[in-house]
Amino acid sequence: MNSICAVKGVSAAGIKEGKFGLALIKAKGTAVAVFTKNLLVAAPVILMRERMNNGYLDGIIVNSGNANVYTGTQGLADAKKMCEIAALAFNTAPERVGVASTGVIGRFMHIDIIENQCKRIAPEIAGDEKAEENAAKAIMTTDLFPKSAICKKPGFTVAGIAKGSGMIAPNMGTMLAFIYTDAELSKEELQKALTVATERSFNRVVVDGDTSTNDCAFLTATGLCGKADFKEFCEALEEVCISLAKQIAEDGEGASKFIEVSVVNAPSEKDAADVAKTVVGSPLVKTAVYGEDPNWGRFIAAAGRAGVLFDPNHASVSISDGDETVVLASRGEILADDKKYPSALAKAKSMMQGKKIKIIIDLDCGSESALAWGCDLTEKYVEINGKYTT
Amino acid sequence: MNSICAVKGVSAAGIKEGKFGLALIKAKGTAVAVFTKNLLVAAPVILMRERMNNGYLDGIIVNSGNANVYTGTQGLADAKKMCEIAALAFNTAPERVGVASTGVIGRFMHIDIIENQCKRIAPEIAGDEKAEENAAKAIMTTDLFPKSAICKKPGFTVAGIAKGSGMIAPNMGTMLAFIYTDAELSKEELQKALTVATERSFNRVVVDGDTSTNDCAFLTATGLCGKADFKEFCEALEEVCISLAKQIAEDGEGASKFIEVSVVNAPSEKDAADVAKTVVGSPLVKTAVYGEDPNWGRFIAAAGRAGVLFDPNHASVSISDGDETVVLASRGEILADDKKYPSALAKAKSMMQGKKIKIIIDLDCGSESALAWGCDLTEKYVEINGKYTT
Repeated sequence: MNSICAVKGVSAAGIKEGKFGLALIKAKGTAVAVFTKNLLVAAPVILMRERMNNGYLDGIIVNSGNANVYTGTQGLADAKKMCEIAALAFNTAPERVGVASTGVIGRFMHIDIIENQCKRIAPEIAGDEKAEENAAKAIMTTDLFPKSAICKKPGFTVAGIAKGSGMIAPNMGTMLAFIYTDAELSKEELQKALTVATERSFNRVVVDGDTSTNDCAFLTATGLCGKADFKEFCEALEEVCISLAKQIAEDGEGASKFIEVSVVNAPSEKDAADVAKTVVGSPLVKTAVYGEDPNWGRFIAAAGRAGVLFDPNHASVSISDGDETVVLASRGEILADDKKYPSALAKAKSMMQGKKIKIIIDLDCGSESALAWGCDLTEKYVEINGKYTT
Repeated sequence: MNSICAVKGVSAAGIKEGKFGLALIKAKGTAVAVFTKNLLVAAPVILMRERMNNGYLDGIIVNSGNANVYTGTQGLADAKKMCEIAALAFNTAPERVGVASTGVIGRFMHIDIIENQCKRIAPEIAGDEKAEENAAKAIMTTDLFPKSAICKKPGFTVAGIAKGSGMIAPNMGTMLAFIYTDAELSKEELQKALTVATERSFNRVVVDGDTSTNDCAFLTATGLCGKADFKEFCEALEEVCISLAKQIAEDGEGASKFIEVSVVNAPSEKDAADVAKTVVGSPLVKTAVYGEDPNWGRFIAAAGRAGVLFDPNHASVSISDGDETVVLASRGEILADDKKYPSALAKAKSMMQGKKIKIIIDLDCGSESALAWGCDLTEKYVEINGKYTT
């Protein structure tokens, strides 16, 4: 098992028919969640923000194809109805069922489709690889591949599945993550761990504030493997969340290249993250990467407008392909110049031809660091989002 | 005269040879300026931020083709040298000359080209239409057309020229504006007027904080027409700045449509502006406009993440072609739906086929309003910025 079903107590099922998909994930345990900060939120988010106060779930139902947003009281009733439908499959009370949706905004749910799909897959709920794969595929929208991650530690396991084309497309690209562990932890511990891990993973693929109406991440602990060291659990959770976040960035709509921005020697982790997110979210940086151009001027210019105070004349900009690193500009001096340093520029240009580009910015004004992930901006992105009609 | 040379005391000259352009604008008077807030600033910006404290200019020299950014002490010396070169043409002291640059980042200036071009056009400095047009054309980079505006009031005139493809492309798209009036005003009055007008014009084409390394706007008052009513002057200045700002948005790189976002009934003008700028800057809104899709879900979702507190269930979203207006969604109800209101949706879709799209968002939580301007996001933008190599 390489995903959620490797976690003791977790079983699943999923179905995808055209744009309409449904996933059922059964897992009794202490549960917490984090939600989008957008003022406009989906009906299931409104419902779950309240119900998750219970801190307990027996299972989660997720549909793709309709985001159930801007659907008013009808939408809220539909979200509750989904919990009732799933409660029968999980043989529990509707209040113990989590619900999430992703898809188009401003359409009323086709509850009959949900009910029908749920009835058909309920008997298939199982704890095998096929089941977890079906669940991961069922929640996809514009995703090109299902996303899953796992981290096995002595004594417990953390695993999750996610969907999303990243906040490169907040409307279609809602991010959903369902994470499980068989470690035993309190609601407070889980909430603290999930909040920190989300900040360092899912929120780092997101251009600041650019959260969709449906974003949410659920974390359920079945506790079947007993108590775990909290620090060790947090590390495992962060590893899983970062893996899922990177997969979301890699699958960005129309993406041809994966970008990792590493900001080092910043005054604080937040400052480092703000700069990293500004750079990875800059349309000019994205198009430069697409054009395979080591355009460090765009990198440093984006960093300069992140709202973080640093001295550009002390900063350095480098790119790396994972193995080698080339310093493009440092402390006010250009080190990859077609006249003075043609070989460095040539090296940088060849690196930009890779599928994974790492941009490193050294602010030289502190000791904190942060990573952010994204993808390039291509004609394909414009095509996908320009041609897509509500 | 339809631009700066209509202002008493203003004469100009300009030349454009390939990517290298030079403009000279001669005008003795009280002068102020506003500059980019980017931490990484061009050498001429560093120089002028200090020199403008004098509050007086005899003329301005502007080059296109090289932004003189990240060029260290050499760059600062080159900026000063440009003032010296122009001082000869204006027959004044270098300290009384303004300088601005636009073009590529991280290249040293070819001062010989500047000096040569200046010597050739100095004798051509004149107060006619050809001269103001040459100056407006000389400062263009990726601009597709020269930008100028004028507002004649009883007793005085305000006029300006600008360049910029908008902050859609902060690196290549530096925004420069040179505004003149023959009204007589104090340095303090001019600074106050320019700061307010900039906030309501140039800063409304800019996605928040997304300012380039070279952005600046200069305002010079020759005072040859004597004192003017300050309020009346501010209105005229704002009219000129807004006209220039709209031209910059219209000329956005790869743009096929012009977008105006009007946010009304907001708690404050800043709140209204923040929402308007977030919506007009959203890649999903831009691509929806390009795709001629009245995708109000994207409009309201973008508004919801602007960091301004309002109730989406009380807000309304409309689009207009200038003549008619169609309400797409209001107070939680969808009013342009393919089932319930097919005619409204059809009307909205036909409006989206126009060249100028107006999106109106009513927050219903105050009485303040603001406008923001932008353009759609097309494959052409990606091509321009992806293929452009430093």
